[in-house]
Amino acid sequence: MKKAILFFYFVILAYMPTLAQQALSGGQNIQSPEVHPNNTVTFRLFAPSANKVEVTGDFLPTQKVQTPRGEYDAPGIGLLTKNEQGVWEFTTPQPLLPELYGYNFTVDGLRMMDPNNVYMIRDIATVTNIFIIGGGRADLYKVNDVPHGTVVKQWYDSPTLKMKRRLTVYTPPGYESGKDNYPVFYLLHGAGGDEESWSDLGRATQILDNLIAQGKAKPMIVVMTNGNVSQKAAPGQSERGMYKPSFMGDTRMDGEFEAAFPDVINFIESHYRTLKTKSNRAIAGLSMGGFHSFHISKEYPDMFDYIGLFSAAIMPRQDVKSKVYENSDEKLKILFSKKPKLYWIAIGTADFLIQANNDLRKKLDENKYPYLYYETGEGHIWKNWRIYLTEFAPMLFK
Amino acid sequence: MKKAILFFYFVILAYMPTLAQQALSGGQNIQSPEVHPNNTVTFRLFAPSANKVEVTGDFLPTQKVQTPRGEYDAPGIGLLTKNEQGVWEFTTPQPLLPELYGYNFTVDGLRMMDPNNVYMIRDIATVTNIFIIGGGRADLYKVNDVPHGTVVKQWYDSPTLKMKRRLTVYTPPGYESGKDNYPVFYLLHGAGGDEESWSDLGRATQILDNLIAQGKAKPMIVVMTNGNVSQKAAPGQSERGMYKPSFMGDTRMDGEFEAAFPDVINFIESHYRTLKTKSNRAIAGLSMGGFHSFHISKEYPDMFDYIGLFSAAIMPRQDVKSKVYENSDEKLKILFSKKPKLYWIAIGTADFLIQANNDLRKKLDENKYPYLYYETGEGHIWKNWRIYLTEFAPMLFK
Repeated sequence: MKKAILFFYFVILAYMPTLAQQALSGGQNIQSPEVHPNNTVTFRLFAPSANKVEVTGDFLPTQKVQTPRGEYDAPGIGLLTKNEQGVWEFTTPQPLLPELYGYNFTVDGLRMMDPNNVYMIRDIATVTNIFIIGGGRADLYKVNDVPHGTVVKQWYDSPTLKMKRRLTVYTPPGYESGKDNYPVFYLLHGAGGDEESWSDLGRATQILDNLIAQGKAKPMIVVMTNGNVSQKAAPGQSERGMYKPSFMGDTRMDGEFEAAFPDVINFIESHYRTLKTKSNRAIAGLSMGGFHSFHISKEYPDMFDYIGLFSAAIMPRQDVKSKVYENSDEKLKILFSKKPKLYWIAIGTADFLIQANNDLRKKLDENKYPYLYYETGEGHIWKNWRIYLTEFAPMLFK
Repeated sequence: MKKAILFFYFVILAYMPTLAQQALSGGQNIQSPEVHPNNTVTFRLFAPSANKVEVTGDFLPTQKVQTPRGEYDAPGIGLLTKNEQGVWEFTTPQPLLPELYGYNFTVDGLRMMDPNNVYMIRDIATVTNIFIIGGGRADLYKVNDVPHGTVVKQWYDSPTLKMKRRLTVYTPPGYESGKDNYPVFYLLHGAGGDEESWSDLGRATQILDNLIAQGKAKPMIVVMTNGNVSQKAAPGQSERGMYKPSFMGDTRMDGEFEAAFPDVINFIESHYRTLKTKSNRAIAGLSMGGFHSFHISKEYPDMFDYIGLFSAAIMPRQDVKSKVYENSDEKLKILFSKKPKLYWIAIGTADFLIQANNDLRKKLDENKYPYLYYETGEGHIWKNWRIYLTEFAPMLFK
């Protein structure tokens, strides 16, 4: 066997431009990032003619940056040094804590991906390399040797919006081979996101696989919608083609998504084996998705027994003409009169939306509406939203 | 509404590091690639301190490159020029023909992705930016305003290999809301590929959506397996974690995948609404997947009425100990005695495997085994495999 395989390799390497090109560049011998047994990490880049190579990532101490809009914390920078073979290298001075980290290189001032790391995620128009330091909660973000659910990308009809729209559905291990009906958790993305965000940036399918395998979460269906009514689907997934995604371009917060949400529920409950009661439906979302969850839950007070606001963009909508945003206080009163089993608010202490969330909590307190509050450090970042999902999912449907 | 949204944008831009960082780099104003109405294309990169910026892509005339292993055709290079704002630019001298193209930048000798193009595909360990010039056959590669099928990523049990394994399933528009049973097309990747290759590099789901919408292909289920028995799943999708993919690392051609193929069929036919007859099963694959299709079809001569070999890696396997590779000629005779409806061989004239395919055709001719032959220009590249899929799928199940 070996002889034939080696012959095949030889001809492939000799004739295939991409592979040959890669071999010529020396790229094939480089491992980056390399996670060492003590959880320090080495980054490497073959760039013999570069003058300065930096790595920027959320695992390095942040730095204060001045902008015309004020000061903010920029991700830290590590300086790589070059060896005689033209390979630049940087090893973190400290072991990294368990987490999913993002990073990029900057070569002579130019931001670039690590060509030796094919694992990357897109956030709006920015692509970032990723790696995971295992252990603790971060083990929930890894693909482990556990039963895996199924991930479905499909289109549903929204008669309210007069559109076919795309969504992501996770069904738990055992769904396909069994006959049981399952509870459903609707999980909404933030501004700039889409139906790919929670599965890609949020590691939602890995988190659910792992929590279910550990017996910490009940097997459930998770539905990840597209919350931008100006989009049918994520960038590149509709006839708009391969346009450049933009944060400003597709965000609408005008009540239309909330008003059309029953279309999603109707589709899921008629196409999947679901438990169709309030106690078997949950909704949560991050940022704009938290705003959506806030409004959808009170707009349809008999629909969800579990409501989660993750860093929710709770903001006054007085100048928006939508029935969804009218009579908020009365609707909130009705919602809580129906005693949802869980109203959960989570936010980071450094989040720019913390005042808005504090105001909401004050209102809930004043009205003696019961809720749970979960606070983390840091701000409006995916690290927190992954944490919130690992905390929220185990409380559902119990 | 506008006031509240603008406030939200303002705070997001002021506080979110990634977005702010991008704004600072000037990246947000650049469009690259830009396809002009006459199908010339402009590439742009903001790199004020770079000395030389090139674009490498399969849309530029190839260049002869000398390597220790011999001469080969490398993708062409276009030289970008810098304007006063530090933006480098290159416009193709000629309009490009309809096609899905790949490219990367090289900045002062360093290969990098286009930071303004989030559309990219991975081939083994190499990631490449892509864009599509529409028209003709290339319109089949685009997401068009047609009914879309569903794409499922799921795990199946392979008792033969004693593994749970991952695969990709496409179900045609109408599958979920209907009750019909469908024919099944098993579509296999090449060496270095996995269960993501045909949907990502091959645009198989777009091609099927479009061919079905045009009435050119019958609605069918397409099953895209992982043909590497050393892998449970694509890189990053199993507990092996985020390792660096390698062509050498996971390719096996030892009969195990072929011997275990009934596990795939059993899973699909017990979990999907399928037509379970020979005339409703097709198998095809590219390169190693063509080799697999050649052996699987003759190993199970009652299974498939439609067999496609795309640039098949047909090679002698005398030194491989596997029952699958024994008595090939006798098995081929049995296969053709059962009169499959279509035996289809496709290859490019510049493919390094053309002699092996000519030898196979000679053998088929000598034995008067009927087959169809489809020849294209160029070699062992995805451009050809997409073409072969658009030609093969319309001939199935009719």
